[in-house]
Amino acid sequence: MTDALHPFDDAIALEPAGAHRYAGRTTPAYWNMVGPFGGITAATLLQAIMQHPDRLGEPLSLTVNYAGAVAEGPFTVQAVPVRTNRSTQHWTLSITQPGPDGEPVTATTATAVTAARRDTWSDSDTPMPAAPAPDTLEPLGPGLGTAWLDRYDLRPVAGNMPQRWDGSRGEGTLTQLWMRDAPARPLDFCALAALADVFYPRVWLRRALRVPAGTVSLTVYFHAGSAQLQASGAGHVLGQARAQEFRNGFFDQTAQLWNHGGTLLATSHQIVYYKE
Amino acid sequence: MTDALHPFDDAIALEPAGAHRYAGRTTPAYWNMVGPFGGITAATLLQAIMQHPDRLGEPLSLTVNYAGAVAEGPFTVQAVPVRTNRSTQHWTLSITQPGPDGEPVTATTATAVTAARRDTWSDSDTPMPAAPAPDTLEPLGPGLGTAWLDRYDLRPVAGNMPQRWDGSRGEGTLTQLWMRDAPARPLDFCALAALADVFYPRVWLRRALRVPAGTVSLTVYFHAGSAQLQASGAGHVLGQARAQEFRNGFFDQTAQLWNHGGTLLATSHQIVYYKE
Repeated sequence: MTDALHPFDDAIALEPAGAHRYAGRTTPAYWNMVGPFGGITAATLLQAIMQHPDRLGEPLSLTVNYAGAVAEGPFTVQAVPVRTNRSTQHWTLSITQPGPDGEPVTATTATAVTAARRDTWSDSDTPMPAAPAPDTLEPLGPGLGTAWLDRYDLRPVAGNMPQRWDGSRGEGTLTQLWMRDAPARPLDFCALAALADVFYPRVWLRRALRVPAGTVSLTVYFHAGSAQLQASGAGHVLGQARAQEFRNGFFDQTAQLWNHGGTLLATSHQIVYYKE
Repeated sequence: MTDALHPFDDAIALEPAGAHRYAGRTTPAYWNMVGPFGGITAATLLQAIMQHPDRLGEPLSLTVNYAGAVAEGPFTVQAVPVRTNRSTQHWTLSITQPGPDGEPVTATTATAVTAARRDTWSDSDTPMPAAPAPDTLEPLGPGLGTAWLDRYDLRPVAGNMPQRWDGSRGEGTLTQLWMRDAPARPLDFCALAALADVFYPRVWLRRALRVPAGTVSLTVYFHAGSAQLQASGAGHVLGQARAQEFRNGFFDQTAQLWNHGGTLLATSHQIVYYKE
């Protein structure tokens, strides 16, 4: 008898499908409005790198461009190590699906860098903000309206989603929350990539208006190596996100993610489409 | 009689070389230590998009991965619009050069998104910090040791390069400076992309040690459209940069760039290799 696969591992599962190619498929568990949760798409791309036989080192950076919604069903991930140096390796990636005429349509493009990291002088300029312990805070949901939100244990510290969509202008765009997979699952690079995209659109907080919005491009920098991820276990991660500018249909969001011990695991920047 | 080409325009000049391909070459004016200044490489990639006949809209995001130094001499830029939506267009790009055996070697990979922007509700969460006017401050240099630095008029406001490389730990990593092309040149998307990479390595400021360092991946989000860029004219841009984490050979840097009128033109995030 074996344990059931965690829904996260099920969602990012890939089968080899030729040189640099992997076959995957969407799962209902991480469905968003018109396609999979962007974080699970980022995690799936990274998973192709993690299981690629030629991989050098561990993830350092990942940029995902959401060109179009991934449709329900099968897809192909291509992950090509286009250049391998002594300590860094550069990847180009894509997700394609068959189009109406059978020709592949690009749903997602991405690039990534993996690196063999060395012990060096290290220091942080971004201490974890003070926050009550996660077990003293109420989790959100379940039943928040989209399937993927139920795959996370989210405990808002500050900047929770507005209670009323009354168009009252907010004071800022800072959200802080504890988050982890639900059910709990030991943290790894793929799960961390997905967590970087958990924050709801900053424009909703700022405007108290639930306008259509969607990530166009997401970049994640991994400061943690696998040792720090293992030390994080299945504990909560404190995430913080803030917008810098809203202009003519697009805003940006910077984010930081710390483990419960206060180690900065990842930083992120994304640009997001919004309507009106 | 015609005016001489500005060194920036000379450096990013590209000739069509087949479908989605452009021929360029390095110029001494923007040379760094072992290759061109990373900002001019980013600008050159964006220039391929700007002159591509199929371009939709204006630059929204650009991610450049510096896989290896671009060698002195000719190179090929490939810029492919892999997916065009109603209001966004997704690009994959590369810079290649002939290798020892004649096969193309990838020096740089990149992705970009262009967008047809619409007037919407807009607001800023990042006011320009107070700074003395640029004409009240002394410009750096010339003769700072690398050619490309002489292509910029740089006027430090805070966090200037350490005066002594004595290993004394700094208090933070914030640098603010006014910057513009030298000679002055009206701001455009390509010039703005280059300005996002002007900051010297944060690790030098933090450690007062000039350790080897180089950008691995750079992302720029353009909040300005061409109207805001035109309004910026050839005036100085205030740039601000800060590191968030230094860990095991890599640090990140967030940056913001405002025009002299206080409009946030671009935000940026990069991850940088450092030694020791």
